[in-house]
Amino acid sequence: MATATSREWRLAARPAGEPKLSDFEIAEVAVPEPAEGEIQVRNLWMTVDPYMRGRMNDVKSYTPPFQIGQPLTGGAIGEVTASAHPRFRAGDLVSSMAGWREGFTARPESLGVTLLPASSMPPQAFLGVLGMPGLTAYAGLLRIGNPKRGETVFVSGAAGAVGSLVAQIAKLKGCTVVASAGGSDKCTWLKSLGVDEVIDYKAVGGGQGLTEALRRAAPNGIDVYFDNVGGDHLTAAIDVANLHARMPICGMISIYNNTRPAPGPHNMAMIIGKRLKIQGLLVSDHADMQTDFISDMTDWIGLGRVRYEETVFEGVEKAPEAFLALFSGGNIGKMLVKLA
Amino acid sequence: MATATSREWRLAARPAGEPKLSDFEIAEVAVPEPAEGEIQVRNLWMTVDPYMRGRMNDVKSYTPPFQIGQPLTGGAIGEVTASAHPRFRAGDLVSSMAGWREGFTARPESLGVTLLPASSMPPQAFLGVLGMPGLTAYAGLLRIGNPKRGETVFVSGAAGAVGSLVAQIAKLKGCTVVASAGGSDKCTWLKSLGVDEVIDYKAVGGGQGLTEALRRAAPNGIDVYFDNVGGDHLTAAIDVANLHARMPICGMISIYNNTRPAPGPHNMAMIIGKRLKIQGLLVSDHADMQTDFISDMTDWIGLGRVRYEETVFEGVEKAPEAFLALFSGGNIGKMLVKLA
Repeated sequence: MATATSREWRLAARPAGEPKLSDFEIAEVAVPEPAEGEIQVRNLWMTVDPYMRGRMNDVKSYTPPFQIGQPLTGGAIGEVTASAHPRFRAGDLVSSMAGWREGFTARPESLGVTLLPASSMPPQAFLGVLGMPGLTAYAGLLRIGNPKRGETVFVSGAAGAVGSLVAQIAKLKGCTVVASAGGSDKCTWLKSLGVDEVIDYKAVGGGQGLTEALRRAAPNGIDVYFDNVGGDHLTAAIDVANLHARMPICGMISIYNNTRPAPGPHNMAMIIGKRLKIQGLLVSDHADMQTDFISDMTDWIGLGRVRYEETVFEGVEKAPEAFLALFSGGNIGKMLVKLA
Repeated sequence: MATATSREWRLAARPAGEPKLSDFEIAEVAVPEPAEGEIQVRNLWMTVDPYMRGRMNDVKSYTPPFQIGQPLTGGAIGEVTASAHPRFRAGDLVSSMAGWREGFTARPESLGVTLLPASSMPPQAFLGVLGMPGLTAYAGLLRIGNPKRGETVFVSGAAGAVGSLVAQIAKLKGCTVVASAGGSDKCTWLKSLGVDEVIDYKAVGGGQGLTEALRRAAPNGIDVYFDNVGGDHLTAAIDVANLHARMPICGMISIYNNTRPAPGPHNMAMIIGKRLKIQGLLVSDHADMQTDFISDMTDWIGLGRVRYEETVFEGVEKAPEAFLALFSGGNIGKMLVKLA
């Protein structure tokens, strides 16, 4: 393939609060033929994820912040269109961190490019159920949450890519599952996945309303809380937690767009008497579970015991809209952008 | 010994906020000769501890609340004065939960009476360095905090019974220790124990002042935070924590007397990126470490590597004052009441 072009998204401005379309700018760049050691890739799919919001702030965190005027990055699945690298051939499907763009030419090592394993699954599954969100759910629930048969697991953001897998894995492990999501469509879908009790958090009101709804949904208390939301959800979980409950903290989407610090739970002292364990979860700590994860998840999908949904925006030009929709609850399952 | 009398303290009213002397009432009761299966005990020492504040509220917690008009309970060391029980003899030293009183006659099983082990240590040590506070420090630091040589350990309430032991055990394990306490006397004492950096939290102001002081005291961050205080201290610890820091939460004395819920840390989202582990600590979960604890602590004291202080009020009539002084920072080391 000869030189091509790629549209790519750059950070135009650091969002203040909720991101806006004007915080993003699109540019067209050349995607040259690969030089020695390089490959040329046409992206097929890219992912948008809530964690990217944190990288838009100029603060030190576990990953360095995005730079203004520079292309955004994130997970992508592409097809090699030309290769001058001994380990890649035209036609190979690859995973990379070179999302937010239609294509690129680079040394594969510089952008985390790896060959997609042979699989009967569609390639974009490796951005979701078989990718980072899947391993996050699997490792966070099983290793930190450590649910035992008969226990009650509460998961928030349960209609999302991670939450919907947490709910289903917890059911597979013999737990009672209480899930929260916003809106009746999501709640109906979660019921169809076998979730025992669903809380529409938009319908019960925040604060004490959520705590009371959780208490009704989990009359015997909760033993694991998988947090994707933070804020009132975490407060409610602490209130309703049983002794020795475990709380993997995966995300706090309810506070990512805050412009000033939000107070934490008012019931922190309960951590002592209940001996709660509240632990931060980042998927990169759990790479050692990757093989077990792929094996188990593939089996579960094949047996129909794990199902997954995708919400797809079409075309690279829609990527910022897809990202913004994460914060308005616009997705059921994995939010994806189809690029080609 | 014939029938005697005992003055005992009862809960007169549930404290609203800071406890007052009028929340306590003293009564005199008979301590009869023991009937079959009973023993008669004269208490020598009793302990007052911050956790007792929680039991004065009418809320379900890990121990049932004290009842109004009923005697308070807590750790005590006494001497058996008469026995009609096969396992106890007059003169035996015993530990019990029958504190807040001068003596009692009861079946030993009903009040958790156990024989004090033979020891060269003074008996009241079994209320402090060799008792519940000692095991709390030992198990909480070593099992939950899990400090490694060269790491930095931060402990708040460090001049108290638990905190001062945490600081010294952390030094023994090869850690850099940062400790906070209120007032120069306490800080001077902590320095004399070998603590590397001491923060007088009263001198640095709350909130951001504390965070900045901690950052100066621990320029490489903290790897373990042993929390006795909660509130601003926990916020500061989360701010300054390194990746994968562990935080045993033992107490939150700064908020026990709050009359309305206090907001939690505003920086809870850092739990995720830093993968913090925040875990409640209650000594009763760690009874399996008792043998190792007594062995290690006795060795360390004998070698002069752990030192301890006591703040002693004399006479049962002073017990409420001793308890109140816990909340005004009136103790260095273990707060005790000498009863006989």
